[in-house]
Amino acid sequence: MAYITLDNSIPGMRSLLAYRPIIAPPLLALMKVVMRSNQGLSLGERELIATYVSYLNDCTNCHTIHGEVAQCFYKDTPELISQIKENYTKNSLTPRLQSLLAIAESVQKGGKHVSEVQIKTARENNISDLEIHDTVLIASMFCFFNRYIDGLGLTSNDTKETYKERAKMIAEHGY
Amino acid sequence: MAYITLDNSIPGMRSLLAYRPIIAPPLLALMKVVMRSNQGLSLGERELIATYVSYLNDCTNCHTIHGEVAQCFYKDTPELISQIKENYTKNSLTPRLQSLLAIAESVQKGGKHVSEVQIKTARENNISDLEIHDTVLIASMFCFFNRYIDGLGLTSNDTKETYKERAKMIAEHGY
Repeated sequence: MAYITLDNSIPGMRSLLAYRPIIAPPLLALMKVVMRSNQGLSLGERELIATYVSYLNDCTNCHTIHGEVAQCFYKDTPELISQIKENYTKNSLTPRLQSLLAIAESVQKGGKHVSEVQIKTARENNISDLEIHDTVLIASMFCFFNRYIDGLGLTSNDTKETYKERAKMIAEHGY
Repeated sequence: MAYITLDNSIPGMRSLLAYRPIIAPPLLALMKVVMRSNQGLSLGERELIATYVSYLNDCTNCHTIHGEVAQCFYKDTPELISQIKENYTKNSLTPRLQSLLAIAESVQKGGKHVSEVQIKTARENNISDLEIHDTVLIASMFCFFNRYIDGLGLTSNDTKETYKERAKMIAEHGY
């Protein structure tokens, strides 16, 4: 049960936006712009960063839905999300993806945890400034969404199937 | 020196928005809607929550500017911000303000740190559902901004005087 009275028929963060409608337009616009940009990071990479940060923040709602969205972009590696959650440094991830997730992991701990070494490594892996920027932006933004959802005690009526259905819609049509 | 090349003549987070212009409209709109709402929490309370969370996140840029903005709304208690930073439970703060800051402090640690007891105490202090919502929202949002700024290694050319000048403008005219 959430700490405030929400419409349980609306899934995820959208029930909070329905509760406080003035927040909805800028927040959804921000989500669209950040998560669906076609510059730099791929849509799949954006979702992987969102998933991993949400997982580190123990936000089940977010890491499940964004994990399913991410998986839609990596159909050839169906174990990718569980591998990343388990230990992203100990599997067959590309150096590029490991570098992005290392920065995201530091951001999750706190902004000052991002190190010059991590930025240098990112550049050595041909990650551009814009991509570094967007990695920090996405990781930071999900530290917001995760806390907003769990801080208000949001619960979910979703099942594995409804998460998958919504994820497919998001992957194909956006937010 | 920031990790990416920014226009140093633009203060604070706005230099990041200038770097990534597609982010600016939704992010500034969100800031305006959340920090300048005239429903529930006062503008001063919103700035106090932002300041305290930014202080806990060790984001000097944010806790300094928002502390100065907050202070504009509490002119009669010029030591308020430093008292809150030092220990908000050990001074003459109202039970209402202590209750809001307790929730904000939990959100800073992580969404699941907010407890039913804190919500119950807030209600006993006549804090409404809308105010609980906005407290969690503001605290979460600053966990985003603080990480966005520090994660990209943003530095500041501001002095005590320029922070005060900008704070006065924000307090009077908004974001």
